[in-house]
Amino acid sequence: MSNFPNALETLIDKFAALPGIGRKSAQRLAFHVLALPEEEALSFAGAIEEAKRTIHCCTVCQNLTDSEICPICSSDKRDKSTICVVAEPRDVLSFERSREYNGVYHVLHGVLSPLSHIGPDDIRIQELVARVAAGGISEVIMATNPDTEGEATAMYLSRLLKPFEVKVTRLAYGIPVGANLEFADEATLLRALSGRIEM
Amino acid sequence: MSNFPNALETLIDKFAALPGIGRKSAQRLAFHVLALPEEEALSFAGAIEEAKRTIHCCTVCQNLTDSEICPICSSDKRDKSTICVVAEPRDVLSFERSREYNGVYHVLHGVLSPLSHIGPDDIRIQELVARVAAGGISEVIMATNPDTEGEATAMYLSRLLKPFEVKVTRLAYGIPVGANLEFADEATLLRALSGRIEM
Repeated sequence: MSNFPNALETLIDKFAALPGIGRKSAQRLAFHVLALPEEEALSFAGAIEEAKRTIHCCTVCQNLTDSEICPICSSDKRDKSTICVVAEPRDVLSFERSREYNGVYHVLHGVLSPLSHIGPDDIRIQELVARVAAGGISEVIMATNPDTEGEATAMYLSRLLKPFEVKVTRLAYGIPVGANLEFADEATLLRALSGRIEM
Repeated sequence: MSNFPNALETLIDKFAALPGIGRKSAQRLAFHVLALPEEEALSFAGAIEEAKRTIHCCTVCQNLTDSEICPICSSDKRDKSTICVVAEPRDVLSFERSREYNGVYHVLHGVLSPLSHIGPDDIRIQELVARVAAGGISEVIMATNPDTEGEATAMYLSRLLKPFEVKVTRLAYGIPVGANLEFADEATLLRALSGRIEM
């Protein structure tokens, strides 16, 4: 038997449904929200509604945006002929932080995952093919995560894009900068060896 | 420079303001909420508003409730002459889970903490004194956490309640059940020794 009133129980359930939040944390968060001043709690609820209402996918690259076309796709300083294909919107941020990449992106919103029943129609693959088919693209860089599903997705996409005779590349594998060779796993070492370059 | 639209940035800020949620986790949670179906995201926002609107403190014990008097205080099976004083509503749940305590509670909503500028008027001490002053109370059990602030609060309250000639007790200190003596800290061992009972 729980001693929490229903509305509190519901709020705890909502928090517990978020990824990485267990029952105990959800309780702590719900108590925190209840202890907030009225105004702040309502502005939290409002932020969820507002984000859900105004944010959608860029019609070009599928990244999250509040305009029809995201700032990156609409910037005339970016090289529209190079597309970097990433799995999630947060991956775009990683690239932007490096300040080196000047092309545009394509966000898949997931990777192919037969075990989770995520097939080609469940992620934004059609949109990528349409962009490449429309022409003007010189290179597509696959930047999905270097795990099984990420690699399978990159492989699937590269085959799908073959008929368009566009250059398809993959991010380099290797030892991360600053890492210790001692702790590098075998697969990474093998990739770093086979991808070695002349100095 | 952030590449997130404003509404998303706001939502991330709201999550990051919750206790124990860092910037990265807040991003993950915000993305998760955006990926939820419209209906579920709005019901999350609704749950916050609903909880904030319907839940308030029991007029007797100050525990969170959606009625004027909480189910524990209004139950005629509970012994109204014994009050267990706890710091937070979640502590009530811990006692209720043990199914042994049959008295009622008083929730302070915090402990005295000079360093955080929390004084006697910032927590529900007046309400406790008023309950005891009203009579009919035979015992007040101090069940604040066994840390410095919890102990100081218990000590302060016991002095405050002295004029009413009510029995004031404190939870027993000792080795937790199932714990290993090897890892018990000195303060706990000392308390366990001084509080030893005849077998």
